[in-house]
Amino acid sequence: VNGPFIAVDWGTTNRRAYRIENGRATHVERDGRGILAMQPDDFAREAAALRARWGDLPLLCVGMVGSRQGWREVPYVPTPASLANLALGTVWVERGTVAIAPGVSHVAPERCDVMRGEEVQFFGAVAAGLAPADRLLCQPGTHSKWARVEAARIRDFSTAMTGEIYSLLRRHSLLAKMLEGEAAIGPAFQDGVREGCKQTLLSSLFGARAAQLLNARSAGEGASFVSGLLIASDVQSQIRGVNDDVYVIGDAPLDTLYAAAIETLSGRPHLIDSAAAFVAGVSKIWEVLV
Amino acid sequence: VNGPFIAVDWGTTNRRAYRIENGRATHVERDGRGILAMQPDDFAREAAALRARWGDLPLLCVGMVGSRQGWREVPYVPTPASLANLALGTVWVERGTVAIAPGVSHVAPERCDVMRGEEVQFFGAVAAGLAPADRLLCQPGTHSKWARVEAARIRDFSTAMTGEIYSLLRRHSLLAKMLEGEAAIGPAFQDGVREGCKQTLLSSLFGARAAQLLNARSAGEGASFVSGLLIASDVQSQIRGVNDDVYVIGDAPLDTLYAAAIETLSGRPHLIDSAAAFVAGVSKIWEVLV
Repeated sequence: VNGPFIAVDWGTTNRRAYRIENGRATHVERDGRGILAMQPDDFAREAAALRARWGDLPLLCVGMVGSRQGWREVPYVPTPASLANLALGTVWVERGTVAIAPGVSHVAPERCDVMRGEEVQFFGAVAAGLAPADRLLCQPGTHSKWARVEAARIRDFSTAMTGEIYSLLRRHSLLAKMLEGEAAIGPAFQDGVREGCKQTLLSSLFGARAAQLLNARSAGEGASFVSGLLIASDVQSQIRGVNDDVYVIGDAPLDTLYAAAIETLSGRPHLIDSAAAFVAGVSKIWEVLV
Repeated sequence: VNGPFIAVDWGTTNRRAYRIENGRATHVERDGRGILAMQPDDFAREAAALRARWGDLPLLCVGMVGSRQGWREVPYVPTPASLANLALGTVWVERGTVAIAPGVSHVAPERCDVMRGEEVQFFGAVAAGLAPADRLLCQPGTHSKWARVEAARIRDFSTAMTGEIYSLLRRHSLLAKMLEGEAAIGPAFQDGVREGCKQTLLSSLFGARAAQLLNARSAGEGASFVSGLLIASDVQSQIRGVNDDVYVIGDAPLDTLYAAAIETLSGRPHLIDSAAAFVAGVSKIWEVLV
């Protein structure tokens, strides 16, 4: 049995560090020290500080820390990718002490995609038995990730800019004023879902504004309607047919909004805690690695 | 025969003024004095200044000047709307001297839409014989307008946020850096068009970025690809079947980008000059009005 280790989910803007022992997190820290906040020398210093704080343990990093803009570029593992492929592609920054895991790439004639970090949750959900080894999995967020898993391998995946577009609309668009407040499940959200599944996003967005101008929708419903519209547009591109199971790995409240949209679009949502999936996935990579 | 008059296309950020005599523009001025640049008292002063400059002629305003944020709110004319309906709905700010034409609204159980200004070009294109009286017309722009005309009436119309989304992506998104430069017709644009007609916009946008990260698309092609993607997404929602005629009222270079996408999607584009359509439309309204 392996001893304890430190896992760092080191993203673009956020960082989460876990001290893991026997497959369970004994300490967790979350902060805004993502790679955008780092100078080139900071990475080694930050890693040393974590190890000093949590008992000189070996440390495994995943996420954007392995990108060109991160600590060291670690080549992507291509689809179909297994958890063992991830371990094999992991690069030691300091032998036996500090390692960075790769991301996954998908290259098909008509479509390319990349991820760094989300693959750990996908594999972890399957490894921990939270999701079957052959199914559609989703991680909602700024960039929503959808993975098709077959025999515990990621065969194909796709990223949607759902969260980023929502944020751009709220901060900078003509719709900004009508998108104040938080989205919530209710009639306006469900109207948005039904509109979203038409896949006419560019005109549906303007329609939301026109409905308010014409008093066909009350102020305060805008955020819920547009959230439902964008999420359904995302979901509709992925689910196939009635009763398609979708395993949603995420955090409240976004995971419940996705679950509601999946249900309205005749899918069957299953919620999985993202921290549990991460700890399971990173533990499994570590187990193969050392 | 009516005497000369002044027509002002008074939009949100831009203003175009025309001195019109016998259905032709003898003077044109274009500036950035849209309604956002106006204080409440400025409208009357600006109108008086135009009239003083161009010979004390009567003045007809169209566009956002008739909205709640403009000079005076003029109620929308509902679909199906004719040119005569527009004249009937025109409001005199000063009897016989200064008038503001209404916009058009579309209210259906599942969809609402509004326009203020574009209806003049749509009617003008038909009145001048530049487009048939029963066809699909389009005005590309920040908010692209699509109108279905039947017996010279606007039966239905739809607005897409195509240009605004493109601008948000260029200025504020993760894709900003890869969208530098101008879009042009070519292989990257056509690839974008083919991707856009899948109607999976949120994931197609991220795919554009992944293709650059994986060197599947060269830097400098981003603007053309994403432009093709957005325009095709807009066009695909509107055209129906092979050889659908689309009358595009616009200005270079955007009108030619739309024409190229329409052709690739098996439609038949016809280009119409927007100033010619405007002058024809506003002259016809004036003729009915006085």
